[in-house]
Order: sequence, then C-alpha cells, then structure tokens
Amino acid sequence: MAHIDLPDNLAGIIGLFAKHPETAGVLCELAQTLLRSESSLTEGERELIAAYVSSRNKCRYCMSTHGAVAKYFLKDDGEILNSVFNDYQNAPVSGKMKTLLNIASKVQLGGKNVTDNDVEAARKEGADDKAIHDTVLIAAAFCMFNRYVDGLGTWQPDDMSIYEDRGTMLAEKGYVR
Amino acid sequence: MAHIDLPDNLAGIIGLFAKHPETAGVLCELAQTLLRSESSLTEGERELIAAYVSSRNKCRYCMSTHGAVAKYFLKDDGEILNSVFNDYQNAPVSGKMKTLLNIASKVQLGGKNVTDNDVEAARKEGADDKAIHDTVLIAAAFCMFNRYVDGLGTWQPDDMSIYEDRGTMLAEKGYVR
Repeated sequence: MAHIDLPDNLAGIIGLFAKHPETAGVLCELAQTLLRSESSLTEGERELIAAYVSSRNKCRYCMSTHGAVAKYFLKDDGEILNSVFNDYQNAPVSGKMKTLLNIASKVQLGGKNVTDNDVEAARKEGADDKAIHDTVLIAAAFCMFNRYVDGLGTWQPDDMSIYEDRGTMLAEKGYVR
Repeated sequence: MAHIDLPDNLAGIIGLFAKHPETAGVLCELAQTLLRSESSLTEGERELIAAYVSSRNKCRYCMSTHGAVAKYFLKDDGEILNSVFNDYQNAPVSGKMKTLLNIASKVQLGGKNVTDNDVEAARKEGADDKAIHDTVLIAAAFCMFNRYVDGLGTWQPDDMSIYEDRGTMLAEKGYVR
C-alpha cells in the first residue's frame, strides 16, 4: 500500500504524476533536460547512469524503467545493463563510461565522496566538463526520483514487460508530453 | 577547487547556474514549485525541511542558505533552526512538524526507510496527503541539490553574512527571476 492515496494500477512515478500534477510538469521537464537535451554524453550513456544509480538505491521501478530505455538506445539485449548493475568495472562499456559510473557511484553515497582523482581519471578517458557535470547532476537527480518513488511507497510491479513497454515509449517519445 | 571550471566568487549552486544555464532554469522552477507554490505546509515549514535535510547531508551551502530563508519566514533568530539541526524532537516546533522531520530524515537515508508508522504518526498530528507528499519530495529534492553542489566541489564560503543576505533575497523574491 502506498503511503498516500494514489490511483490503482498506475505504477511508480506515474501514479504520483497523476495524483500530484502540480509537481509532475517540472519533474518531467527536468528528466527531459537531463536525459535528452544537448550533452557530450549520448542518450544511452545518460540512461545507463540513471539506471545504475537507481540500482544502487534499489529502486525497482526506476532501475527497470531507465534500464529498459538504456537497452533501447544501446541496442543491448540485457548483457551490458546487467553487467553494469553487477560489476561495472568489468562491463562491456568504454573506459570513459567506467570512470563516469565511478563518479555516479560516489554521488549516490553523497556528493562529498567525489575526489579530484575520480574526476582526473574521467578526464584522462576523454570526459569533458559537460560530461562530468551531467554525470553528477543525473546521479543526484536519480537520488531524488528514487526517494520520491520509494518514499511514498508506490506500486512497483513484478511483471518486467510493463517496464520494457514503458522504456520503449520513453525512448521514442521523451519525457514531456 | 571545484571539479569543473566555474566562475570565481559565485558560491554553491549559483556558480553552477551561471556556468550551466541549460539546467539552471528547470532546477529553479523546481525549487519555486516545491517551496513556494500552494501546499498545506507553510513556506517556513518547507524551508525548514529543506535546511534540515541539507544539514543531514552536511551541505554547508544549502543548509546555510535555506536555513536563512527558514529563519526569515519563521521570524526565528536562530533558536528554532539550531534546535532542529541538533535535536528536532526537542525543538520548539509543532508536533506535526516533528513527525514530518522524522519522515524527511528517513527519506534522506533512502526512500524505503519510510514506514507506515512514520506516516500514521504524521496523520495523527494533522498532516494531510499533500503535506506528506511535499515532505517526501522536498527531502528527496534536497538529496539532489546537496549532491549537485557538493559533488562538483563548489565554493562554499565561511562568511555567514553571505547566506543571510541570499536567504533574505530568496524569501522576498523567490527562486525564479
């Protein structure tokens, strides 16, 4: 049971958006800005960071949804995503991506954990200021979205096809209707 | 030194907004929506939740800035704010506020920590769905803002008058220019 009155059968943040439209608009706009607007990171890379942080926060709704979007953009059958969730340092992603996932993992624990060495390692792999900025802000934003979805006890179905369908829709249409 | 190139002498999130205007607009809009738009919580109560979560995340910039805004709205010389930071259960705030600060403290650790009992306690003190929703989302949002400000290593001055001046400005003018 959710902690507040939410519509039946609307999972995760969708139920929150439906019941609280007064905050839904700006939250969708934030997701669109972070995950779709111009960046030195691809959409797939950004969705992978979002999914990875959500997995670290154990938010099933967000990790499954953004995992599905990441798979779409990365043309991944699940191997990349599951490797990143389990052990990103040995996952089939670029050296740059590993250094950014490291920064994201530090942000997930708290912003002060990011060190000069973490950032230097990302720069050596070709990450520019925009990539570092976007990695930190996306990781931070999913610490918000995950807490919003879990903190209000939303319904998060077991049926993975729900997340796959929603992931395809978000990949093709974006976050702003 | 900040982890990315930021303007000199622009503290905390202000330097990030100046250097990365592409994400500044929606983040300001989010702050305005959460902290100023219609709610069953007062502006002072919402700013107090923001400051408290920031203190738990040890983000000096955010706790000092939103602490200053909270003091403005609560007509507090610092006694309320410091009591909340140190031991909110014995602070001179309402019973409802104590139950909401408890929920915020759970969200700061992770959304799954919020229990039915936490929410029930807040309802018994008069908190409605909107108050519970806004408490969770404000606490979650400051877990983002704090990580953004700290994760990029922004300058956070020691001079408290900077935060007091900015707090007065934000209380009087809001977050959207």
